[in-house]
Amino acid sequence: MNLRLRFALTFALLASLALLSAAPLAAQGDERLGEDGTVRMDGVSVPLSNLMSEEAREYLRHLILDKPFGTAVPDIAEERARQDAIMQGFLDPMRRRYAVDIAQDTIGGVVVDIVTPAGGVPANHSDRVLINLHGGGFVTGARSASLVEAVPLAALMQIKVVSVDYRMAPEHGFPAASEDVESVYRALLEHYEPGKIAIYGCSAGGFLTAQALARFQAQGLPNPAAAGVFCAALDGYSGGDATVLAGPLLGFLPPTPSAPRTAPPPAAGPNYMSSAQRDDPLAYPLASAEVIAQFPPTLFISGTRSFEFSAALNSHNALARAGVESRFHGWDGMFHGFIYNSDLPEAREAYAIMADFFQTHLAD
Amino acid sequence: MNLRLRFALTFALLASLALLSAAPLAAQGDERLGEDGTVRMDGVSVPLSNLMSEEAREYLRHLILDKPFGTAVPDIAEERARQDAIMQGFLDPMRRRYAVDIAQDTIGGVVVDIVTPAGGVPANHSDRVLINLHGGGFVTGARSASLVEAVPLAALMQIKVVSVDYRMAPEHGFPAASEDVESVYRALLEHYEPGKIAIYGCSAGGFLTAQALARFQAQGLPNPAAAGVFCAALDGYSGGDATVLAGPLLGFLPPTPSAPRTAPPPAAGPNYMSSAQRDDPLAYPLASAEVIAQFPPTLFISGTRSFEFSAALNSHNALARAGVESRFHGWDGMFHGFIYNSDLPEAREAYAIMADFFQTHLAD
Repeated sequence: MNLRLRFALTFALLASLALLSAAPLAAQGDERLGEDGTVRMDGVSVPLSNLMSEEAREYLRHLILDKPFGTAVPDIAEERARQDAIMQGFLDPMRRRYAVDIAQDTIGGVVVDIVTPAGGVPANHSDRVLINLHGGGFVTGARSASLVEAVPLAALMQIKVVSVDYRMAPEHGFPAASEDVESVYRALLEHYEPGKIAIYGCSAGGFLTAQALARFQAQGLPNPAAAGVFCAALDGYSGGDATVLAGPLLGFLPPTPSAPRTAPPPAAGPNYMSSAQRDDPLAYPLASAEVIAQFPPTLFISGTRSFEFSAALNSHNALARAGVESRFHGWDGMFHGFIYNSDLPEAREAYAIMADFFQTHLAD
Repeated sequence: MNLRLRFALTFALLASLALLSAAPLAAQGDERLGEDGTVRMDGVSVPLSNLMSEEAREYLRHLILDKPFGTAVPDIAEERARQDAIMQGFLDPMRRRYAVDIAQDTIGGVVVDIVTPAGGVPANHSDRVLINLHGGGFVTGARSASLVEAVPLAALMQIKVVSVDYRMAPEHGFPAASEDVESVYRALLEHYEPGKIAIYGCSAGGFLTAQALARFQAQGLPNPAAAGVFCAALDGYSGGDATVLAGPLLGFLPPTPSAPRTAPPPAAGPNYMSSAQRDDPLAYPLASAEVIAQFPPTLFISGTRSFEFSAALNSHNALARAGVESRFHGWDGMFHGFIYNSDLPEAREAYAIMADFFQTHLAD
């Protein structure tokens, strides 16, 4: 396999993982997956959580049994288009639910999407702004996941959201995205007080939020008022029990003789973080207690069947230990990136918590 | 089986469940349990979480492989003595770590243990008090789990802790324990402002904390300053994925031909909550959005391999939805009642979070 193809395959699979938690490994008709969504592992039967909404239970059953998002494809452009189409499927109902305007702009030399409430930002909110960093495994999601993450908060908070089209892999590697976020932040600081800016993102965007905070600190820039690390942790997305269990609990069970593997395992290879060192707090902020001790108030959002759940809990505890104001909200049985689906009551509950958190911390 | 024996068996098993998450079902030498503590379910291998401390990993491995707390016994007095001995095993290192004095007293006609920092409560803390409600499935733990829950906070917060020896099953049923807590609270209110009182408990004591808050409300009593619902949720301990997965992930796997069941399943029968209605907020406070909307600031503490974890997450979200200040801290891989073991760094981290939370909310 040539290097370019290995790159492509790796990144495409990573992008898929960022949404789906694991590539589909089990054949359809696996007897371990009940028609009601129950996952059976060696006599341990895990039904859909009774603490989820009916809508979320039906959607999770669909994810487990139908695996509607398919499998990543090796060609990067094709995979990005495929992921954009998935995002469009989330954006359509979202735009019917939340009235916003969307415009393209360039800030600090970086392309951004500007999402504002329909009818404009109210005068008393014109001095505040949210920065969004989209998900997609540092490979996909530009200008698409961006909108899905920005629309609800722009409408609910009646605020301007600037979503950054940061550089991604495989064309670029760490710290290219952090540099782009810094450029946008510096430009916004010419017009907004730092206490009137909050920054957030989901999945790769949640991780990048933490990286950006560390970079602002290293560059002597002031903290924003608050941060949202959603579907992610301060040091990535993995670790602990959730990383092992999220895939199987979403129906991606290990192959067996009667349910053989249908897709190859992810190829090893370089990705956006390949050149980063594990002890570099600009790459993995949790590596430095001193760096995270200077973080602004931070909100974590996750779900128990999300591969980042354990790592997010762990990051929340680390911030508390460092004396930083930190909040954690998790939803039982919910999967990676569930907040992209505004049809789910749990997602809308999460938006309300995000809006309340940012509103509380944006200075009056 | 006569009724008395069924009662005894049920309650003893419940008491054991409160500490151990499930009665041991699998034989020793189960090939699904690796020597390193890995739990294997149908090809899904769940190792000990890499996010746990070394001490907690070693202890969890011991729990999974050795099941050191054995099995509940049918005789209530014998089971209580057995659980008291287990608690003494936690209390001994705790008393070496935290210097406190312990005295018996009677407040509002109810027997209590008074735990105070060695050398006495500092003058500037003499106007504040914590009420502790011990765990033990509403059957065991009187005067023993009480101390294990009270000692660290008395020492760390330099505060008086009053631990209530409330009436339990099978001799008594709901709402006997709530009545006893109310009696103690009323008596303390003659000497302390409500804003200088916080209330907390672990397991049954965490559930009882929520019941007591609902009862205070119904009786027109003022709220205490804060509450701690540890190892529990606002409506008990069960629900969601954690209730299904905690047992297997602690090594209590379903029986198989090669690893047959070695203990009988819990007998069905009446327990402390048998006479309570699911829609009665005095019994299950989560049943009423109006009741929980009046709750004081509340802290939840749990672990992801604890059967109450999902329910605790859910209660935390419900309080946030109701506009109540709520905090949630969970530790990956940790088991029900891990805070009883002060040798674990995670337990000591939890004490620090509890102390900080209560200190913040006790009025100056």
